[in-house]
Amino acid sequence: MKILVLNCGSSSVKFQLAETDAELIEQNKDRVLAEGTLERIGGEALLTFETMNDGEEKRTSRSAEPVRDHAAAVDKILKWLISKEAGIKGLTSLAGVEAVGHRVVHGGEAFSSSVKIDAGVIKQIELCIELAPLHNPQNLKGIFAVQKTLGEAVPQVAVFDTAFHHTLPEHAYLYAIPYQLYRRHKIRRYGFHGISHRYVGFRYRTIAGKEKDEVTIISAHLGNGCSLCAIKRGDSIDTSMGLTPLEGLVMGTRSGDLDPAVVEYIAHKEGLTLGEIQTLLNKESGLLGVSGLTNDMRELLDEVRDTHDRRATLAVQMFCYRLKKYIGSYLAAMNGAAAIVFTGGIGENAASVREKVLNEMQWCGIELDKAANEKAVKGAEARITTEASRIAVWVIPTNEELLIARDTFRAVMNLPQK
Amino acid sequence: MKILVLNCGSSSVKFQLAETDAELIEQNKDRVLAEGTLERIGGEALLTFETMNDGEEKRTSRSAEPVRDHAAAVDKILKWLISKEAGIKGLTSLAGVEAVGHRVVHGGEAFSSSVKIDAGVIKQIELCIELAPLHNPQNLKGIFAVQKTLGEAVPQVAVFDTAFHHTLPEHAYLYAIPYQLYRRHKIRRYGFHGISHRYVGFRYRTIAGKEKDEVTIISAHLGNGCSLCAIKRGDSIDTSMGLTPLEGLVMGTRSGDLDPAVVEYIAHKEGLTLGEIQTLLNKESGLLGVSGLTNDMRELLDEVRDTHDRRATLAVQMFCYRLKKYIGSYLAAMNGAAAIVFTGGIGENAASVREKVLNEMQWCGIELDKAANEKAVKGAEARITTEASRIAVWVIPTNEELLIARDTFRAVMNLPQK
Repeated sequence: MKILVLNCGSSSVKFQLAETDAELIEQNKDRVLAEGTLERIGGEALLTFETMNDGEEKRTSRSAEPVRDHAAAVDKILKWLISKEAGIKGLTSLAGVEAVGHRVVHGGEAFSSSVKIDAGVIKQIELCIELAPLHNPQNLKGIFAVQKTLGEAVPQVAVFDTAFHHTLPEHAYLYAIPYQLYRRHKIRRYGFHGISHRYVGFRYRTIAGKEKDEVTIISAHLGNGCSLCAIKRGDSIDTSMGLTPLEGLVMGTRSGDLDPAVVEYIAHKEGLTLGEIQTLLNKESGLLGVSGLTNDMRELLDEVRDTHDRRATLAVQMFCYRLKKYIGSYLAAMNGAAAIVFTGGIGENAASVREKVLNEMQWCGIELDKAANEKAVKGAEARITTEASRIAVWVIPTNEELLIARDTFRAVMNLPQK
Repeated sequence: MKILVLNCGSSSVKFQLAETDAELIEQNKDRVLAEGTLERIGGEALLTFETMNDGEEKRTSRSAEPVRDHAAAVDKILKWLISKEAGIKGLTSLAGVEAVGHRVVHGGEAFSSSVKIDAGVIKQIELCIELAPLHNPQNLKGIFAVQKTLGEAVPQVAVFDTAFHHTLPEHAYLYAIPYQLYRRHKIRRYGFHGISHRYVGFRYRTIAGKEKDEVTIISAHLGNGCSLCAIKRGDSIDTSMGLTPLEGLVMGTRSGDLDPAVVEYIAHKEGLTLGEIQTLLNKESGLLGVSGLTNDMRELLDEVRDTHDRRATLAVQMFCYRLKKYIGSYLAAMNGAAAIVFTGGIGENAASVREKVLNEMQWCGIELDKAANEKAVKGAEARITTEASRIAVWVIPTNEELLIARDTFRAVMNLPQK
């Protein structure tokens, strides 16, 4: 089944065209036929389209042209997919796109798995807008754009970033605030990056040759946003992001954890509104705020190496220290873990970050294999601890699009999700 | 040396009269001569005064009478101390009170140890008022009241709740917010309960027969306020309270950790001001907010035992779960620890809380001795893990007044603090 995977952001659309079915999933042979991005939607947009052709030959096309809105972007993607220029084998008309899978950021408490989209689902996603005002409206635009271009008959599936965390127990998802605030406004920990954590958990147990309920691991998704997930017997039982993606680890531009009283203190001292403070904590904090240089871990690590910049060093230290503490807390939450998995742009590539986090962890039996750690970059899937290490640490590249494609297939076919 | 220890709150004054000197400290034989509280200052106050008489015979006197302000309260305490009614041996005039030690909540970055109070110190404590608007002004009232009653000649010493945490490294005390907010307004983690954590660290190394730099432990002060402290080689290197005492563990009425975005969300949904939200998070949250019943752990545990109340059970679970996670994170921060010490009202008495926290900790080698744990209540000092336990867990009753008295003696005599 040819499935279009869409990830619609505020001014961008990422897509992937994947070929998958039950047999391909079983054999781990589902393929990416094409992928690309449209950035700066609303103005002169940048388009990057790539055709994979089964890995035989990769064709890339770049252009800049006006793209009005998400509907126009989806239209452009679909037209390109069936074009001669793209040259995707076996796809010559829109009828060849058999289903569309959407990454939807917030499913609230309504969704515990991926679902076929109908009027009821759309209604629920709309109800979650106030929980994710920056994301859900964009995701909905993508859904409506596909309805308009491909028609109602093509099945669409919503794959939620929150759904994997529906197994969090009450004592982990509630905040210690008046209970009626949860009852009245559903203020609780939801967690995000669920698609990535779930993929990594799935991939780890495939590698380890274990059943879902035999797998107790900590998954660290470290990208622009960063979150940790405690996966006990295959289920997410805790995660570091909360009501919003602001909580938890130090991130590129987000503060992560903070004394909640800091919000009022900043408002008072700087004369900022609550909205301005949210912007400050989400867009001007984290690695960027501490270093004063950049939100990009690669650039910071270069800076540390080349100039020993004091605040760049501090930002990296804070990032690693917070992460190390969270690993300890999730080990405690699960009475230990068999493995820790690093994923996401930083997790997959920043060997020195992994080393700092895993250093001085003899207390829980982690023994880093430095050579293996150095080599585990650029998409490598590798174990980076020694054979003697009591806890195995792995680097596993994430693949959210693949999981969305598979879930889309399974939802369309009414098959159980894994 | 006879030392009056004062702890001035918003509407209460607690005091202790202690006898200490270098030799008594060395022999751990410093004595409490009298102690008491004045509550509801500003109206019809409740006075509870006790004389110890070297443990021979305890005299308690209770009364209710109008006490106008802190100055009147201090006056009343001093007059009682030298009265026949109190009958304190060797104390017949105010000249017998040789020094006064004050618990001062916030010393900001200015104080890394206890200091003799002079005009400069008072100025600095005043500068810290905006960091502790509810506490420092009361502490200052106590200082001025003593100056007025005993005169400037009697030495007074300030013992700070923050000072023990001055050894926190930068990566532990900074928040991942724009660095200039630290530079401009000193927004950082300060930590509290330093007197208690320091006392417990001192007491543990006395029991263990170790030097300060040989002691790496986690101290859990669980009272009305709760905080954890990571003590590495005798120094505090991390602690769970932050800029204010709101951050960290679940407490009687405080939320502890929270997605910082929750503040804006509550403001938006409930139409509350920032000040009202601070009240909600400080006074209506924690055990009280979750259970909807009480902020008192004893009452909650009774409720759980007698009625299996769902939300009381949930509140206790959340309290224990958060604590368990923090223990894991501090183990990670210090590459393990030799011991964990429980102190404070809950820490010293709630055996079932300790059991919940220490259960399923085989992963780090903790093996609870259930019988010892059950017995370690009501002021007992005891080890509650088995001999085989890789990490020792102790219950050590805190004694902040004793440490304040000792520090006061040492500051007055210009001796080094321990």
